[in-house]
Amino acid sequence: MTQTSLTVLSATLRTTEPDDFYLPPLPRLLPVSYHPQAARIEIVSNGWVRRMLGECFADEAMLLVFLRQRNGIYGPITVPYADPARAQNIADWYQFVTVIDSFVSDETALGADSDAAREAFSAIMADVGTDGSGGAASTAYGRAAQDLWRRIRPGMSPHQVTRLVRSLKSFLDGCATEISVKLSGRVPDLETCMRVRMGSFGCEFLELFTEYAAEVDMSELAAQGVFDKAHHHGMRQLIIVNDLLSWRKEYADRDTMTTMRVLSEHEGLGQQEAVDRLCELVEHHERAYIAARDEVLNGPHGNDRDVRAYLSGLDHLIGGSQEFEYLTPRYFGDGSVWDGSTSGWLSLSAPIDRFRAAPAPPPRQPTKGASS
Amino acid sequence: MTQTSLTVLSATLRTTEPDDFYLPPLPRLLPVSYHPQAARIEIVSNGWVRRMLGECFADEAMLLVFLRQRNGIYGPITVPYADPARAQNIADWYQFVTVIDSFVSDETALGADSDAAREAFSAIMADVGTDGSGGAASTAYGRAAQDLWRRIRPGMSPHQVTRLVRSLKSFLDGCATEISVKLSGRVPDLETCMRVRMGSFGCEFLELFTEYAAEVDMSELAAQGVFDKAHHHGMRQLIIVNDLLSWRKEYADRDTMTTMRVLSEHEGLGQQEAVDRLCELVEHHERAYIAARDEVLNGPHGNDRDVRAYLSGLDHLIGGSQEFEYLTPRYFGDGSVWDGSTSGWLSLSAPIDRFRAAPAPPPRQPTKGASS
Repeated sequence: MTQTSLTVLSATLRTTEPDDFYLPPLPRLLPVSYHPQAARIEIVSNGWVRRMLGECFADEAMLLVFLRQRNGIYGPITVPYADPARAQNIADWYQFVTVIDSFVSDETALGADSDAAREAFSAIMADVGTDGSGGAASTAYGRAAQDLWRRIRPGMSPHQVTRLVRSLKSFLDGCATEISVKLSGRVPDLETCMRVRMGSFGCEFLELFTEYAAEVDMSELAAQGVFDKAHHHGMRQLIIVNDLLSWRKEYADRDTMTTMRVLSEHEGLGQQEAVDRLCELVEHHERAYIAARDEVLNGPHGNDRDVRAYLSGLDHLIGGSQEFEYLTPRYFGDGSVWDGSTSGWLSLSAPIDRFRAAPAPPPRQPTKGASS
Repeated sequence: MTQTSLTVLSATLRTTEPDDFYLPPLPRLLPVSYHPQAARIEIVSNGWVRRMLGECFADEAMLLVFLRQRNGIYGPITVPYADPARAQNIADWYQFVTVIDSFVSDETALGADSDAAREAFSAIMADVGTDGSGGAASTAYGRAAQDLWRRIRPGMSPHQVTRLVRSLKSFLDGCATEISVKLSGRVPDLETCMRVRMGSFGCEFLELFTEYAAEVDMSELAAQGVFDKAHHHGMRQLIIVNDLLSWRKEYADRDTMTTMRVLSEHEGLGQQEAVDRLCELVEHHERAYIAARDEVLNGPHGNDRDVRAYLSGLDHLIGGSQEFEYLTPRYFGDGSVWDGSTSGWLSLSAPIDRFRAAPAPPPRQPTKGASS
């Protein structure tokens, strides 16, 4: 390679992302298991989405794209120990919020206009009501939310129901903020990104549904701050793993609210450097979560059966989320099928990808600046 | 509608199949459950197919079409009670034979030439060896068969291993016969069809793997004919349910070895009449299977724990097969996602379909003879 071609190549790398990046094996120190009825729960949940939310999709083809993402198995992987009826409710809830999240990322749908999105979200909150008692439900979203409320509410304490309302609001607020930041083209700093993502990732209801699945009520202890450290590190692990595994999708969606973009814009890291840095952060937060969890287990609440059940549930939430993110065609391309591998090369441009042992061969069609 | 247009319509119906048919609810008198590790077993099995049989597919896209059919969940649905390692072996085995079956239906692959297919099948049998000890395994099929043998053999009695070899041969013979009959364009009579299908549907190994899953050896009792009646009706139920649910695929593949074509050619039934007749036969054989099973349970072997386990396994095989056939995109079109429904209208021409509450609206493009 001549000096000239090296200069050209270097300029190319500075102005465009390399197409391939390598995802190293992540620690995976937390347990992963599937609900014994996972397969069946996913199917039933797909029926629920078609029935309750089908009309939100532009057409049957778009509904099928969503169903092929297997979002209905997120619940059964994160609450493998739950009573089947509760696991079903949780699966449906996560599908509900993932439908919303999908349209938030879509600039031809909710993602086109943050004011319109905020209006749509207010309508959902009105349908739910401050106590979940419900409004007129003129939209499919509102009817779906009411259906979930009707099924979930009897299994929650009044405290938890209040938190459920608040967690939905916090999720929708996070989504609306993501839309306006993205439309402005701004890339937030790390702490802003984390704060918004805590909302738009649904961290409040992730914690709450972990209680619901374990049939415990941590409202008081959580309010006292007993789980603050475990939540802090656990939720950061969740978000960063998501940013790594969803990077193909976020890049395609030109999303700005992801730590990959934050590290690139604010710390000047290249794509692979950002991936490597995030992998270090995943390990840091995963180990810090385990230490914080053990601190609670060894502390004054450590013999409380409910506390132990909740913490075990958090383990499965974190381990299961990651498993789902390796599995879903949402991140690896519509039509992909997971073969169980968790590390390797990925391409930003391949419509369908999987972890490969080597970078992709050079593209057949010449691309801008990639000559010589 | 005028007399003239009625005549035209009537002529049209006589010369072409109506595009839509209605599948009524089937009895479903047998239990259905999913293996508690079904979701995970399917993923691992997809990894096995990629590793062992990936090269059999023309390209990555064709491999993905196969994996999207979810053939890896057939095992876990038919042996929900099995030890997980055995369930995994069974899942892989069924994927292996389904890969072969897919290429048998494909006139650009094994289905192009029955002599070439017989040669390929002989090579597989040589790799397996009469006792499963194995040959040189120069093909991916041979290597996959040897891998399965190595894992499955230790869990079978010598009798069962002999039966496994015989059952694979019988399956491959059935496949080869299907190819030559299809290439000749002949539609067999019902009894011929059933005989060939017993082979190509793999009925011998379906029974054998039911024993393997239940960890029992029925070789002697089966040879004495104790299960003949239960097998006869059970396997006919399996085959006819398969013919109903796979009709969209078999029609597209111009398959002749299906009871749908038999009833049309030899009894002059229209498509809907054939469907309705087959539904009656499903009910007949399902009830006759249950009666035959109960006869064994109430007979001299009825208190034998192994016999009871085997018969319960047969129940799950039959119920689970049907569940799988509602679920698989193999029959409802690449990209379909099951929502749990089991009855309704289906179209022969829609690339992706699902059970609909009403026939499809008339096609947008005019089709031959469908005017007025």
